[in-house]
Amino acid sequence: MIFPILFTFFFLLSSSNAAVQDFCVADLAAPEGPAGFSCKKPASVKVNDFVFSGLGIAGNTSNIIKAAVTPAFAAQFPGVNGLGISIARLDLAVGGVVPFHTHPGASEVLFVAQGTICAGFVASDNTPYLQTLEKGDIMVFPQGLLHFQVNGGEAPALAFAGFGSASPGLQILDFALFKNDLATELIAQTTFLDAAQIKKLKGVLGGTN
Amino acid sequence: MIFPILFTFFFLLSSSNAAVQDFCVADLAAPEGPAGFSCKKPASVKVNDFVFSGLGIAGNTSNIIKAAVTPAFAAQFPGVNGLGISIARLDLAVGGVVPFHTHPGASEVLFVAQGTICAGFVASDNTPYLQTLEKGDIMVFPQGLLHFQVNGGEAPALAFAGFGSASPGLQILDFALFKNDLATELIAQTTFLDAAQIKKLKGVLGGTN
Amino acid sequence: MIFPILFTFFFLLSSSNAAVQDFCVADLAAPEGPAGFSCKKPASVKVNDFVFSGLGIAGNTSNIIKAAVTPAFAAQFPGVNGLGISIARLDLAVGGVVPFHTHPGASEVLFVAQGTICAGFVASDNTPYLQTLEKGDIMVFPQGLLHFQVNGGEAPALAFAGFGSASPGLQILDFALFKNDLATELIAQTTFLDAAQIKKLKGVLGGTN
Amino acid sequence: MIFPILFTFFFLLSSSNAAVQDFCVADLAAPEGPAGFSCKKPASVKVNDFVFSGLGIAGNTSNIIKAAVTPAFAAQFPGVNGLGISIARLDLAVGGVVPFHTHPGASEVLFVAQGTICAGFVASDNTPYLQTLEKGDIMVFPQGLLHFQVNGGEAPALAFAGFGSASPGLQILDFALFKNDLATELIAQTTFLDAAQIKKLKGVLGGTN
Amino acid sequence: MIFPILFTFFFLLSSSNAAVQDFCVADLAAPEGPAGFSCKKPASVKVNDFVFSGLGIAGNTSNIIKAAVTPAFAAQFPGVNGLGISIARLDLAVGGVVPFHTHPGASEVLFVAQGTICAGFVASDNTPYLQTLEKGDIMVFPQGLLHFQVNGGEAPALAFAGFGSASPGLQILDFALFKNDLATELIAQTTFLDAAQIKKLKGVLGGTN
Amino acid sequence: MIFPILFTFFFLLSSSNAAVQDFCVADLAAPEGPAGFSCKKPASVKVNDFVFSGLGIAGNTSNIIKAAVTPAFAAQFPGVNGLGISIARLDLAVGGVVPFHTHPGASEVLFVAQGTICAGFVASDNTPYLQTLEKGDIMVFPQGLLHFQVNGGEAPALAFAGFGSASPGLQILDFALFKNDLATELIAQTTFLDAAQIKKLKGVLGGTN
Repeated sequence: MIFPILFTFFFLLSSSNAAVQDFCVADLAAPEGPAGFSCKKPASVKVNDFVFSGLGIAGNTSNIIKAAVTPAFAAQFPGVNGLGISIARLDLAVGGVVPFHTHPGASEVLFVAQGTICAGFVASDNTPYLQTLEKGDIMVFPQGLLHFQVNGGEAPALAFAGFGSASPGLQILDFALFKNDLATELIAQTTFLDAAQIKKLKGVLGGTN
Repeated sequence: MIFPILFTFFFLLSSSNAAVQDFCVADLAAPEGPAGFSCKKPASVKVNDFVFSGLGIAGNTSNIIKAAVTPAFAAQFPGVNGLGISIARLDLAVGGVVPFHTHPGASEVLFVAQGTICAGFVASDNTPYLQTLEKGDIMVFPQGLLHFQVNGGEAPALAFAGFGSASPGLQILDFALFKNDLATELIAQTTFLDAAQIKKLKGVLGGTN
Repeated sequence: MIFPILFTFFFLLSSSNAAVQDFCVADLAAPEGPAGFSCKKPASVKVNDFVFSGLGIAGNTSNIIKAAVTPAFAAQFPGVNGLGISIARLDLAVGGVVPFHTHPGASEVLFVAQGTICAGFVASDNTPYLQTLEKGDIMVFPQGLLHFQVNGGEAPALAFAGFGSASPGLQILDFALFKNDLATELIAQTTFLDAAQIKKLKGVLGGTN
Repeated sequence: MIFPILFTFFFLLSSSNAAVQDFCVADLAAPEGPAGFSCKKPASVKVNDFVFSGLGIAGNTSNIIKAAVTPAFAAQFPGVNGLGISIARLDLAVGGVVPFHTHPGASEVLFVAQGTICAGFVASDNTPYLQTLEKGDIMVFPQGLLHFQVNGGEAPALAFAGFGSASPGLQILDFALFKNDLATELIAQTTFLDAAQIKKLKGVLGGTN
Repeated sequence: MIFPILFTFFFLLSSSNAAVQDFCVADLAAPEGPAGFSCKKPASVKVNDFVFSGLGIAGNTSNIIKAAVTPAFAAQFPGVNGLGISIARLDLAVGGVVPFHTHPGASEVLFVAQGTICAGFVASDNTPYLQTLEKGDIMVFPQGLLHFQVNGGEAPALAFAGFGSASPGLQILDFALFKNDLATELIAQTTFLDAAQIKKLKGVLGGTN
Repeated sequence: MIFPILFTFFFLLSSSNAAVQDFCVADLAAPEGPAGFSCKKPASVKVNDFVFSGLGIAGNTSNIIKAAVTPAFAAQFPGVNGLGISIARLDLAVGGVVPFHTHPGASEVLFVAQGTICAGFVASDNTPYLQTLEKGDIMVFPQGLLHFQVNGGEAPALAFAGFGSASPGLQILDFALFKNDLATELIAQTTFLDAAQIKKLKGVLGGTN
């Protein structure tokens, strides 16, 4: 059997392939919309747009919480734009902590690659779900709920978090409350915390007022 | 416990925050896409983008149907762009009517703030669902179905409608049929209405042909 | 023109109408899925399923925060199930506060019906967006971000909140942290709050450990 | 190269295949949810679930509008449940008309297989978009907007409509207004039609009141 | 009853209509995003944007597979952009074949307009679902699964395929494997095909390496 | 400041919390719908529902392709049901290969935890995107496109794949073509492969006909 002219097949279709939306690599300089960044022109897309090497480098945990988060969201890794998926690396030195935070835009699955991590989330009926995770364990944190990770062992811990969005967002509770110019009195009124406690944490985190 | 250098924490992460898509305030002058308007540059977003005062002003009901609708959709209230929510104000003078209409893009919840409103929708099996709503009552109108509101009392009525889209759309039946240049004969053929009836309403609403 | 047998038209189509999914009134006793509650059988749906009167009644603000929230989500108002919309009533006595909270599942538009409300949200880059809202003003709070409402006036305030989901959820920060059995030490580690502060609020809110 | 034991590969994975959700053939007797019907048990799915022969049969156009619509929505064709697609057949005898209607749940693409069809829709700014379609032409009707089809030729016409939902819904304007027990006075008030016109069409379509 | 000033009604609303997003006709020259192409300015939208005549023309089947596919996706038919629907024409000469392929972005419903087509798809548990379709039959192919169509009769066949996306995509298995510069050795390793077989098909389809 | 009765606050709201849909842990025995499995009753949800340890165990690569995939999709890990995220472990012995396959329901991000992996996907315009990934690298494979992974080094490789769906599906090309009873002639017709090649692979993979 021979197919001498098969490559003329689907002529009409081929002409449209240039516009098929298999992917939408983010053009960070073009207008952004509710569904994500604008797409790079297909002709300029390269394999490097789909590969990211930043997660191979340990984050710097030489800080007071002894932790670092390295994201590969659409803003850092344009290839995931529009594809509903992203990932981040989490380094926790001994005693390291990722304090309570939420991801407004996606659920998270955490995979422990090294060490022991105590993790938990709180449901909206205020029930906490806590677990000590060993290497190889995974845990899911539903979208938008407060959760945390703590190194629960005697050695550094390493984990990777997958998200069901290219831009899951991240709101860290302490930063949202104390690392800005929200008035102490207003925070006290809306959190029931004592003013002295608020001022102390504002001092630590660089907040004012 | 002291946190002297906590503010150096999450360095990598902070650099990405500028691109986190918490919201997408509409830039009405930039290209629009299927998911909504393009986003304003984060640096130019102000609190005023998230606040709208137009619904505090009563609509002008000095018209024959004695009613006014004031929308706060993405086109009027850019802060809701991409957030899947919008709202409108409805003023109904005594005898006022919002005639049969649909919202192609969202369901609606109507809240009666003042007065009495007779409201109803028709399901696609032609069953009508009618109710007289008093102050404080709410009623839901499923997406795309014909519905109406009538002031059923002896005093002005006021209501607010929430929509599950930033651009729910609004197609008013009488306007769609009679406030344009559709040929009378074609309308008769596709609605079974008498030509005289059609011409009468075209006259009222400013339609031609 | 006469239409003597028009009602035999669309015979095939009419037989399918019983199954058309115009709406999906929640059957709270049937299995629930990721998209919401199962639907009531069409034959048992009544207009009352689409109407809710609970928001006409002022919430009881005789509590320490002088505030009450009355939801009309799918669990309370089965008619909105699957329709991507819901609503809640907010009563704030003088000095009343709705403390920092999030809605994991939807954005919110707040409409001030009476009084003055100071409201605000914090973006994930920690920028606060604050505004004093007067009667008739609306403000939007993007999905999943921390926000609050405070009565900013000398009289009771009343507001209504529309949500872009039938089950937007609600996680109140203080309740998530202090109204359960999370260990004080763990909370301290993951919030940087002092143990004494945590124990004080656990005492107030009924938490243990 | 030989692969003697390849079929033991992916053992873990294969055990999960029974639950992979490639499709969700509707079980019309099980609970329905907002996303569609429950799925038949995978073991009972047959190829016939994915095939439907009803569209090969001409609809009966011996009625006053000389038209018939034959749907293959999820309720008639369970294989499309959850797949976001469905189709319908449209027969138009000479002089046949599908009167103004909407599909609340999906946009439509109409393909003319035979004859000439005058079709049109009205946008929500009341602009009509009308076209005479010949065999082979297609036209798209955006979700939720009023549209119609009329046989514009001297021979029977045949068309097929594709929808972007397994349950697009269908609300026929005249049926919604006149084929039920809505009070004539209420219809007059909410459509501006004359009572005599309403009563005439109620008589034709079998409505009361 | 007279309505002398009804056309002043809904003044506020009318001013917003220009921005109502009933549709989003693709502007193929403007930035594209994850949800589709940017929209043409409303003022330049014409009825022709919603009509496409290319499917009335038989595709050229004078090729070795004796088949042709003519798409009306967003790239060819800008009116469907953002509307979640598209369509394609399939011509199969006697002996014609559309080889195994997938649509990554949508499910497909195939309608046989003329002739006999043997069609099938394979589920992810490797079960094939095959059927011989006669004129008037439809068959659904779930999103992303391998499927094919073969002319099973003695006469040319014609079919139309509806898709639940404006850009469903099309990946033809043989083209993906053999019509590019993938190394023969790599293809052998990842398909278990013999190198000679691979080289033979590369020769036919114009691939290299 | 004292809050003696704060715990009576939000009484109405608390009563609804039991129904708040923070998550929907799969009840694998209850009806499944298009959006996923039915939810377990909230009262029976435990922290173990959100944790999965199966990925800590190396898959058995003692098979001809020297590879193993261990999924944690909703069917194996009920906690991710409805949350739009899942994960899988990939073990590749020296010389190991995951042959060409697709995920019909989600995009994938692959993270290389150990070793070297040559990975690639083919776009629908037939362009291959290939990369040699080292430990710490990630690569994204857009939804529905053919892709593969090959151990490119001299030591075992380990990787983890995140998916933007709780049930991404998996269709392995060779299994779909050769591990079932599809007739050799039909496969030849729809793939252009030689009958001898097909029969050889059917023999290896356990297919018939």
